Amino acid sequence: MTNPVTKDRRHFEDLTVGEVIELGRITVTKEMIIEFASEFDPFPFHLDEAAAKASLLGGLASSGWQTGGLSLRLLVDAFLSKIASAGGLGFTDLKWKAPVMADDTIGGTVTIAELRRSATHKQWGIVTLDFDIRNQKDKQVMSLRLNNLVDTRSPETLA
Amino acid sequence: MTNPVTKDRRHFEDLTVGEVIELGRITVTKEMIIEFASEFDPFPFHLDEAAAKASLLGGLASSGWQTGGLSLRLLVDAFLSKIASAGGLGFTDLKWKAPVMADDTIGGTVTIAELRRSATHKQWGIVTLDFDIRNQKDKQVMSLRLNNLVDTRSPETLA
Repeated sequence: MTNPVTKDRRHFEDLTVGEVIELGRITVTKEMIIEFASEFDPFPFHLDEAAAKASLLGGLASSGWQTGGLSLRLLVDAFLSKIASAGGLGFTDLKWKAPVMADDTIGGTVTIAELRRSATHKQWGIVTLDFDIRNQKDKQVMSLRLNNLVDTRSPETLA
Repeated sequence: MTNPVTKDRRHFEDLTVGEVIELGRITVTKEMIIEFASEFDPFPFHLDEAAAKASLLGGLASSGWQTGGLSLRLLVDAFLSKIASAGGLGFTDLKWKAPVMADDTIGGTVTIAELRRSATHKQWGIVTLDFDIRNQKDKQVMSLRLNNLVDTRSPETLA
């Protein structure tokens, strides 16, 4: 039951615990912060520069969920679009460590922490990915652990 | 050090473990799914109806991160904008239980699971919130536990 769309991509068996994926980088502009927050996280410190300056953060900061979404996008571009990904299951231990301010550039690494076969669905494995997201000063801004399904090669090749 | 913007809102001391917040509801359209996925989660099953029909999900499904963002927005409108929220710390145990398909309507409840004072910052408490997000058929599509900072009343009122 190999998926014809993804058959030439790396599958579960081609991944290795400890592999480090270098993410690209993205600069978070004032406009991006305001647009995202208007839809998902409408607080003054994400929407209004004057209010943001008066807040604890001292300036316009991105929604933590935007930092999460942008980090996902960096992982899709660097990794998930190149493997036979079958979708996310969920994640654990997301921590926002420091704010992402307007004009900060974020990037970082994602490390393969665990690989295990699905107990119930032989066609899938589960790859556990640890995100280490940092700003341009190499300060960590977010960490999280994502569980993602990956197609295995055809069940016939299983030992 | 009461924040003048939020002094009339409910503070940490006004919250109760077990309180259930009823969220509003939002319908996730095809256009919303494609727009979000184009920016954050560009996979065929989020972007292309024909590819989505051929996938495991059998139709266009929203990015799980979009379900998260929309649930946050429902919580902001129903609760976080009405308390002296000082921002999110992170969350644990996010699970995508079932896909959210185009034209599904999501809503649900958020329950106050824990309340504790910050050990290091007397001006803050931490409220732990359990999300139970369901579709129009009352099927759970996502759960997660969020930790959020809330201002306490002035330190002078502490026991």
